[in-house]
Amino acid sequence: MRQSKLFGKTQKETPSDAVAESQKLLHRAGYVRDSVAGRYYFLPLGMRVHEKIEKIIREEMDRTGAEQILTPTLHQLELWKETNRTDTAGFELMKVKDRNGAEFALGGTAEEMIVDVVRKFNISYKDLPFNIYQFSNKFRDEMRARGGLLRTREFIMKDAYSFHETEADFKKEYEKMWKAYETIFARMGLKTVAIESDNGYIGGEYCHEFIVESASGESKALTTEDGTYAAHEEVAKFKRDNKNLDESLGGMIEVEAKRENTMQAGVELHKLPLWQQIKNVLFVTEKGRFILAVIRGDLAVNELKLVHAVGALILRAATDEEIRSIGTEPGFIGPVGLDHKKVTVVGDLSLRTAVNFCTGANKQYCDLQNVNIDRDFNVDKEADIALAEAGFLSESGKELREIKGIEVGNIFQLGYHYSKLMNATFTGKDGKEEFYYMGCYGIGLGRTMATIVEMHNDEKGIIWPEAVAPFQVHLLTLGEDEKVMKASEQLYEELLAAGIEVLFDDRDLSAGIKLKDSDLIGLPKRIVVSTKTLEQNKVELKLRSEDEIELVDISSIAKKV
Amino acid sequence: MRQSKLFGKTQKETPSDAVAESQKLLHRAGYVRDSVAGRYYFLPLGMRVHEKIEKIIREEMDRTGAEQILTPTLHQLELWKETNRTDTAGFELMKVKDRNGAEFALGGTAEEMIVDVVRKFNISYKDLPFNIYQFSNKFRDEMRARGGLLRTREFIMKDAYSFHETEADFKKEYEKMWKAYETIFARMGLKTVAIESDNGYIGGEYCHEFIVESASGESKALTTEDGTYAAHEEVAKFKRDNKNLDESLGGMIEVEAKRENTMQAGVELHKLPLWQQIKNVLFVTEKGRFILAVIRGDLAVNELKLVHAVGALILRAATDEEIRSIGTEPGFIGPVGLDHKKVTVVGDLSLRTAVNFCTGANKQYCDLQNVNIDRDFNVDKEADIALAEAGFLSESGKELREIKGIEVGNIFQLGYHYSKLMNATFTGKDGKEEFYYMGCYGIGLGRTMATIVEMHNDEKGIIWPEAVAPFQVHLLTLGEDEKVMKASEQLYEELLAAGIEVLFDDRDLSAGIKLKDSDLIGLPKRIVVSTKTLEQNKVELKLRSEDEIELVDISSIAKKV
Repeated sequence: MRQSKLFGKTQKETPSDAVAESQKLLHRAGYVRDSVAGRYYFLPLGMRVHEKIEKIIREEMDRTGAEQILTPTLHQLELWKETNRTDTAGFELMKVKDRNGAEFALGGTAEEMIVDVVRKFNISYKDLPFNIYQFSNKFRDEMRARGGLLRTREFIMKDAYSFHETEADFKKEYEKMWKAYETIFARMGLKTVAIESDNGYIGGEYCHEFIVESASGESKALTTEDGTYAAHEEVAKFKRDNKNLDESLGGMIEVEAKRENTMQAGVELHKLPLWQQIKNVLFVTEKGRFILAVIRGDLAVNELKLVHAVGALILRAATDEEIRSIGTEPGFIGPVGLDHKKVTVVGDLSLRTAVNFCTGANKQYCDLQNVNIDRDFNVDKEADIALAEAGFLSESGKELREIKGIEVGNIFQLGYHYSKLMNATFTGKDGKEEFYYMGCYGIGLGRTMATIVEMHNDEKGIIWPEAVAPFQVHLLTLGEDEKVMKASEQLYEELLAAGIEVLFDDRDLSAGIKLKDSDLIGLPKRIVVSTKTLEQNKVELKLRSEDEIELVDISSIAKKV
Repeated sequence: MRQSKLFGKTQKETPSDAVAESQKLLHRAGYVRDSVAGRYYFLPLGMRVHEKIEKIIREEMDRTGAEQILTPTLHQLELWKETNRTDTAGFELMKVKDRNGAEFALGGTAEEMIVDVVRKFNISYKDLPFNIYQFSNKFRDEMRARGGLLRTREFIMKDAYSFHETEADFKKEYEKMWKAYETIFARMGLKTVAIESDNGYIGGEYCHEFIVESASGESKALTTEDGTYAAHEEVAKFKRDNKNLDESLGGMIEVEAKRENTMQAGVELHKLPLWQQIKNVLFVTEKGRFILAVIRGDLAVNELKLVHAVGALILRAATDEEIRSIGTEPGFIGPVGLDHKKVTVVGDLSLRTAVNFCTGANKQYCDLQNVNIDRDFNVDKEADIALAEAGFLSESGKELREIKGIEVGNIFQLGYHYSKLMNATFTGKDGKEEFYYMGCYGIGLGRTMATIVEMHNDEKGIIWPEAVAPFQVHLLTLGEDEKVMKASEQLYEELLAAGIEVLFDDRDLSAGIKLKDSDLIGLPKRIVVSTKTLEQNKVELKLRSEDEIELVDISSIAKKV
């Protein structure tokens, strides 16, 4: 491709709202342009990268035996009603009506569509398992889009859905996809960490995000140094350290407590460490049910874990008025003597790691000391509802460290969730209809592209890994010398004939601009043809990732690259 | 690919609403499935064909120097307002709002988006011309969707847009695209005819539909036997035959006319041929303006030509009340004595091909005889507003015949229309800003796929041309003989190793079902492995398009195919 004919240009300016390095570089180097916030044009250079990413994913998916299909972009809303996802999809769903009044969703994922097409066929256990995937537009009506291609409102996603006879069979596919994902990302120059993550309503252990460690990532994970445990902050488990379990239980006493409404005020008043305070947080579910989270004072409540523990969809903090309505007082809530008909009390496992706690007495300026679970209060449910933090120990006793990463893909256990809600069955061995056990597997292409740039750049520009570079070679002709032009043209034809992807900078511009542009665009190899080197029948060859420039005979350069 | 693992199955039933052969066959053979009316799932077999079509189009577009890009699916409605297309797009536009209230169009074409991205760059005449294209979802909120993939509400389209300094430069690109289209369709086994068609507001001569002649097509065209002239019925021109021009003009007289409101009643009453009657049809424009079309009685009014002649967007027939409001009478309208302030009179060229016409006298039961243009009435505009018909002569005097065809692509002069409305300019040679001269070029992929099936099938099923077949070879193993199974498996591996795309029917089904399915699916070559032929170390080879079966040594079959 002649650069003089390339649509899209490099430029010095970055978009005013650009924060991520990839956003700045992809804009400046002419790979993408903003349409409106969160929606992007892929220019020819960007499209070539996008296509290469798609090809790698397709090859590896096909290798696993998965089959490519395509669903309509508009999903009939009836299907989403079958799964109650019109309101609870977790991303704001965009809806549109056609001229006949039929309603459609602009799909954020396609479980309903896939189950819909699968249930159109008479499928028997002999046909299972299968895994069908597509590359298709996905829409997310994000409140804020930011970071360029890292978080968009519209993007091409590879979404795959597998159908199984049993959970055991699903697990095999899960492992297969896990490996395929590692291969896919490795081929693109991305080192991924698979972290356990939340799979909402399912609650099983088969849900992983593939993240690329990066400060610009939005996924926070906790992992052991040796990588044997890695989990999203939202779901990370940890070992609670025992505190004063050898202490004998004191008698519970009520004390005056003229203090502020903070945990720290309790520490100062009672002259006892934070971990010996009980933290009590009152939440309200989407159905108006009160949930009191009771946890050791030095730990924080993990709302997502709490949501799962109580089987709610969503939680919000209770207002002062609501707190009073269950017979207690803001800042002085405690688990002792509460009316369990009015509030469900959920205790964290950490309540078993210490004794003789302090907590509120459910009336103003009044605390309790020497409070102990079982003896002084009961919980309706004991569960892990604590937020893991860096420095805590993993369940196997290794120290957890926090990493930040960009989520480039995920693999996901769906279980019977969709097949049961949509009544999708196959004929089992005994002739009876059985529900499919399902899994799903996604990769966002644009975000993957941005992540590659995040990981492969320097102060001069992008450094594309070969497998996804828009072209392999950047051929630059410097100066307007006719001999140089002619040699460059010849070399260009020679490289093309050798099947090499070449971007030929034939523009009438200064050496400085051309070299700068070349670094910015970031093709793996640069060949420079200039008067000086031509005198020796040589050209300059430089790898974008290296500093050295090599002089190579013009006759052997095509072979060399 | 093993057929036992293929998602999607053949079936005997066709959708109840299926009319087109391609719709029935693609459904029965397991290439596509209906989602809701006009929206389709592409199953793995169908997706493979779709991808091959995309690849051929991409190769030929790239060969012309066009560059692939991608625009967002949601087009900000502001852009469509710049071109006044929110109401007049010619296809019903679907609109959607995001959570912030921003409005978007689900694009039916992407002119606005492309101009939008182009004007983000500082482009000079040196950068021109360029042609950028994409494969993207297009939405058409059709009142009725029918014919399966022939007319859908959502489909992948290759849409290309070229930008030029001058009309002359655009014409070169137009020729280039014309040739590329011929190559694209020829590679897929489609013989196309390029017919002149309507390009609406532009009105130039550079607009062609590429149609494939087929009874199931919706495009009607008129063409000379030698193909030197071919035009869509809507725009076809023809030579009006002279009638009685040698007759001397009679004096105009008013006669009583107790007749029905039809042309035929006039013929019988006046005992004069149909061509000697004047046909008068009153229309109303979208702005409420009255337009009277005046034409020779044996010709029909072409509404599209009339729309262009008067510069309206749309026309409808006037009601009886409206007819009376301009001072005339239904069934007795005539051009003589009308108030041209109330109605614009447009006369067809055919009014010059005869003399002494009969027509209505603008009052009930009253006609005029010996009516002649210029002497007895004037028209506000004389134009070609007649519908061409089979049997008429082309302007060069050759007989026109009617053909029906499926529109698989179109090439289109846009001129300055969009660049002026959207103020998109480049820097000209003299440093001044100039508007782009534009063209656009579309191909619908799904419709192309259906058209291939329309043209390549027999009573047993589809007969795919090699270039677009989902697999090249259908390998069938007949019987459960272990030797046959083993030989088939070996052959399957051998064919794969030779890089041949094979669908291997390894299913445990009867020979009858397998052979029937094979014909229905329609791969170019079929290899059958059976006990009988294996005894001679041979297999059967049959082309789907031929009847003969050839016995081929199993050792040489891979080479042979």
